[in-house]
Amino acid sequence: MKVTVHRKAHFNAAHRLFNKQWSDEKNFAVFGKCSNLNYHGHNYELVVSVTGPIDNDTGMVIDLKILQQLIHDKIEVEFDHKNLNLDVKYFQDKIPTAENIVVVVWNILREGLSVSLELAVTLYETPRNFVTYKG
Amino acid sequence: MKVTVHRKAHFNAAHRLFNKQWSDEKNFAVFGKCSNLNYHGHNYELVVSVTGPIDNDTGMVIDLKILQQLIHDKIEVEFDHKNLNLDVKYFQDKIPTAENIVVVVWNILREGLSVSLELAVTLYETPRNFVTYKG
Amino acid sequence: MKVTVHRKAHFNAAHRLFNKQWSDEKNFAVFGKCSNLNYHGHNYELVVSVTGPIDNDTGMVIDLKILQQLIHDKIEVEFDHKNLNLDVKYFQDKIPTAENIVVVVWNILREGLSVSLELAVTLYETPRNFVTYKG
Amino acid sequence: MKVTVHRKAHFNAAHRLFNKQWSDEKNFAVFGKCSNLNYHGHNYELVVSVTGPIDNDTGMVIDLKILQQLIHDKIEVEFDHKNLNLDVKYFQDKIPTAENIVVVVWNILREGLSVSLELAVTLYETPRNFVTYKG
Amino acid sequence: MKVTVHRKAHFNAAHRLFNKQWSDEKNFAVFGKCSNLNYHGHNYELVVSVTGPIDNDTGMVIDLKILQQLIHDKIEVEFDHKNLNLDVKYFQDKIPTAENIVVVVWNILREGLSVSLELAVTLYETPRNFVTYKG
Amino acid sequence: MKVTVHRKAHFNAAHRLFNKQWSDEKNFAVFGKCSNLNYHGHNYELVVSVTGPIDNDTGMVIDLKILQQLIHDKIEVEFDHKNLNLDVKYFQDKIPTAENIVVVVWNILREGLSVSLELAVTLYETPRNFVTYKG
Repeated sequence: MKVTVHRKAHFNAAHRLFNKQWSDEKNFAVFGKCSNLNYHGHNYELVVSVTGPIDNDTGMVIDLKILQQLIHDKIEVEFDHKNLNLDVKYFQDKIPTAENIVVVVWNILREGLSVSLELAVTLYETPRNFVTYKG
Repeated sequence: MKVTVHRKAHFNAAHRLFNKQWSDEKNFAVFGKCSNLNYHGHNYELVVSVTGPIDNDTGMVIDLKILQQLIHDKIEVEFDHKNLNLDVKYFQDKIPTAENIVVVVWNILREGLSVSLELAVTLYETPRNFVTYKG
Repeated sequence: MKVTVHRKAHFNAAHRLFNKQWSDEKNFAVFGKCSNLNYHGHNYELVVSVTGPIDNDTGMVIDLKILQQLIHDKIEVEFDHKNLNLDVKYFQDKIPTAENIVVVVWNILREGLSVSLELAVTLYETPRNFVTYKG
Repeated sequence: MKVTVHRKAHFNAAHRLFNKQWSDEKNFAVFGKCSNLNYHGHNYELVVSVTGPIDNDTGMVIDLKILQQLIHDKIEVEFDHKNLNLDVKYFQDKIPTAENIVVVVWNILREGLSVSLELAVTLYETPRNFVTYKG
Repeated sequence: MKVTVHRKAHFNAAHRLFNKQWSDEKNFAVFGKCSNLNYHGHNYELVVSVTGPIDNDTGMVIDLKILQQLIHDKIEVEFDHKNLNLDVKYFQDKIPTAENIVVVVWNILREGLSVSLELAVTLYETPRNFVTYKG
Repeated sequence: MKVTVHRKAHFNAAHRLFNKQWSDEKNFAVFGKCSNLNYHGHNYELVVSVTGPIDNDTGMVIDLKILQQLIHDKIEVEFDHKNLNLDVKYFQDKIPTAENIVVVVWNILREGLSVSLELAVTLYETPRNFVTYKG
């Protein structure tokens, strides 16, 4: 009997879509204004979904205080009010598209959770564009 | 060819996280302020998701009027403007965590639906904390 | 390693639930006020979800500009500010319930996408009534 | 010491922007696709805001049950699942723009409220287009 | 040149509408299920709006960190995860209707702000019922 | 008889709070992480509110197509996918706080509107922090 617990979080960051292997022209042709030189930014919203059995004593799948702390320490501290291209080590060699960010976030959180729990992450770049990764 | 129909509902209730087997100290250590003596409360939002084939004559999976009535009679009447710990029989011996509530709601609705339909329920305790149960 | 990309869109349309095989009485008995003679309408919200591998060069599953263009050309141009019963060919012989609309939208978009991509569509008729089809 | 009480309601309706004094060409030039012959529709959201002193005995400005009943009887019954142009008497000789609808709604509700209460109404035609009238 | 700065906050609390001067019957007749004996609860959302001139050096009307701290110390600590009737001193002799709560919150915050700043507070009891007080 | 028409728009931008007259230490002391060297960003949401009489022939206060075009040409083209500090001329000598941005936006739009219309602008920096300017 497995239940999924979802927790929302958010971080505000600057980024720019840019493939270092390509010319500026090719970057602009592929990424358009998302490639603008001086960066732009987003209020990223995150939904972290953890699935597992309910503990009989607590009635919980996972203590939300622990999940919040994990998201805070590993994601918010690293990503919030940062420039993803310049300040966040995970994107030294990876374009910070929503797709790549959600996989990075999933991998970071996966390490902090018991193997008995399943994990899915949804990342909103804007209210109309979002991505999901389930591993 | 199966389609899922989702219907939102809500109820406002008081609750308190408290394991009767434990001391007050242990309850407070595990549940923190969610264990406060005199209860607190939430606007619970419910998404009931029913999956099945489309009926050729009506173009519907399930008549929404029937689904609404079921949610009203079995969930809203029982849970709305109630104290989950004191007033709702399902939580006499079960801590009213979001996880336990969503399983209770699923079991109640499951009984009222044709076996040919699949059921999933998502329960929002707050806009940032929510849970899903699919049976 | 597959990621799902979601894109929201919307269209505003009039419709009426009406089975041409039935008497007015039977239509009204089954569909209630949704069957009213002179139509009513909705702000339909659409979430189009495309799943596939991330392209190494672009960091994307699908170019959102291409997905937006497809949704615009094939759905918004056909459905927006229209009467679904009278103006949209797909509902000549099909009742425009949310269930039937979401299957029609899915079929249209499916044709415009590479077979290597999976597709799911969620359609909101109102903020409280919505449907999902995954093929 | 005056407090404002806000109550949300909604109705789903079809409409068409069309000035009977004008040619079809002029209507289309001014109103564009909002003038399409066979109507389109919206999920209209309404926020009714009533301002007055707090009653000492009840702690309320107005009994919400009474306000809800007024909105139901005078607005929802008249407008919900209707064609504003064809079915609603107030728009026999008035174009059902959001501006005209909000003034009509305000005038109807104004008659049902004590003169000691102030009234404002906001009407959402879509989540991105809305209007407010304060008398 | 005055600008208004709005900050959202929230607290989850239990309450019951009950006039101690009245019989149970009269309370139930006036307040209905909101008067249920064992309390119910809400996710209260708060919008605190502070109006004043922009400081030339900071470009701010008020430092949001200071406003957040004030809301936290004076409102969230006092109201969150509490029973408004039993645990919160301001409602010893006042019915915790949304109207009375918003006036209490306004009075508390007013004391913590410079007299040169104007204050308005909106309190959501549910997404569909909310109140505003401007002093 | 005046009605207010509201139109939502949005732009995604990077920014940094930084007073060029101050040392890095003072900037960090006042603005905290909002002052981080390499910028961060937001999905800015804009609500433009125009008040005036309803035109008898059109039933409108202002043609929304014209208002949308004005917002597009003067705000979205200038601000969207930009770095407010580096790319937008209005912030060469002004800190791009929400307060300063909303005044800049108001001044730009004011020039494009008839003097017979009143204008208010609300700018959301995040869903929880927003500002309003009415001139």
